[in-house]
Amino acid sequence: VEFRNEITKSQITAFRRTILELADEARETIRSFAHKNLLVDTKSDGSLVTQVDLAIEERLREIILIRYPDHGIMGEELPPIAPGAEFQWILDPIDGTEEFIRGLPFFGTIIALHFRGAPIVSVIDHRAFDLRCSAGFRLGTFCNDNKVTLASYRFKSPSPRGGENIIIPALADFVKYRDDADKFYRITRSFTNHRIFRTCYGHTCAVTGMCDAGLEYDVGPWDLAATRLLIEETGGKFSVFRQERIPQVGVVSGAAFGNPTVVQEILSALC
Amino acid sequence: VEFRNEITKSQITAFRRTILELADEARETIRSFAHKNLLVDTKSDGSLVTQVDLAIEERLREIILIRYPDHGIMGEELPPIAPGAEFQWILDPIDGTEEFIRGLPFFGTIIALHFRGAPIVSVIDHRAFDLRCSAGFRLGTFCNDNKVTLASYRFKSPSPRGGENIIIPALADFVKYRDDADKFYRITRSFTNHRIFRTCYGHTCAVTGMCDAGLEYDVGPWDLAATRLLIEETGGKFSVFRQERIPQVGVVSGAAFGNPTVVQEILSALC
Repeated sequence: VEFRNEITKSQITAFRRTILELADEARETIRSFAHKNLLVDTKSDGSLVTQVDLAIEERLREIILIRYPDHGIMGEELPPIAPGAEFQWILDPIDGTEEFIRGLPFFGTIIALHFRGAPIVSVIDHRAFDLRCSAGFRLGTFCNDNKVTLASYRFKSPSPRGGENIIIPALADFVKYRDDADKFYRITRSFTNHRIFRTCYGHTCAVTGMCDAGLEYDVGPWDLAATRLLIEETGGKFSVFRQERIPQVGVVSGAAFGNPTVVQEILSALC
Repeated sequence: VEFRNEITKSQITAFRRTILELADEARETIRSFAHKNLLVDTKSDGSLVTQVDLAIEERLREIILIRYPDHGIMGEELPPIAPGAEFQWILDPIDGTEEFIRGLPFFGTIIALHFRGAPIVSVIDHRAFDLRCSAGFRLGTFCNDNKVTLASYRFKSPSPRGGENIIIPALADFVKYRDDADKFYRITRSFTNHRIFRTCYGHTCAVTGMCDAGLEYDVGPWDLAATRLLIEETGGKFSVFRQERIPQVGVVSGAAFGNPTVVQEILSALC
């Protein structure tokens, strides 16, 4: 039984309108900081954060709290609000803060609305590329204003076995909480035509067919919050292959997503 | 003795004007094929080529032959002209044909003029990013119209040891002509914060300071033709660490480039 069917199409359409407005606000906030000196902090996990990350998350929370006072919010930079609520907004204001600071264009804003743990609407927005992937449950996936499906990809996926173009995490992600370097080596050996971006731009590549599939390893809930719906609404496969609770960090997950055949090959290569 | 001092500054300035015109022509040719169906061929080495690659190389050769009838030309897609000439134009019309076909923006046009084997002027042009790095010997390196030097980088390189942001080749490049997978594993272990683009966009990142350094492994002369000058004119280091003649292919090289400290660390990690 798909419990998301309780939510009507017009509700989903309204949520989608909101999430696109939130993505617009995120872009506008980033724009307002352009050419300013960024204050960069290092978080307890070693990752970077700037005042832009915080400004975006504060602005998005403000809007959500006014419109949906009974919804929960969990964001990467601030403590959760109403963690028991059925509707949860999940925010990563800037995924790829290191890229953002360095001027690499691959950073993205991730926003999703989940209902009892399953995604209803979601967006990954890349301001530097003027590129936005958004999805609504049963509404499809859009890249800017174009509907995208697995069948519509310009480059028919997947590439021949051995030549698949997949986006993988850096070794850093496989050795962050445990030494799973062997998994990295197994994946790279199995798919030698890989690329590494280290941001949600890799998810966008899998959503749009610019690559055949993508993979994340031991990332937080924000990182994957938008991707499942974006992929599933294209007809692609999203598969969580590992989950673990890390003390002081929370639950981290590994997932593969994109062309179903290639996702299956990735899962086989990992075991 | 620096034999390139034989070439006057005004000659170099004139060559630079030409090379920027050639880069404009390459962009214009790419633009003229936008939204057309691409014919994709697989070359004998398994890499891809389209009619756009060929159209660019033909157009650039035409212009060079009219202006400099005694210069040599070597391009990735067509046979060399006057291989014994002192001046050699080196062309890679589309580096990253796979990205170009798939709609990934990282492809680039590489053009260089070498004098007795050493670079005089060079350019890497990324049409999809409206981003062009160009250099002239003793003229400096420019990113679009801004002069770039190691000291001018927004993000002061290098990052702390262990956190360096480096661009590396995919495993495919380490196992193309021999199994040098151990080198890939050594580099990834030594620099876990790596990214993989598989095109000259990685060189651009090293030139502009968007990353600390880059690395190529067993690539052809086209791939590296522009990079040495672009890097050296910023004050960075470009170091060829291996060369080999592969039958039916030609000479392939490995090189590291970017922040001098990080380049030195890369060379140490490889041995």
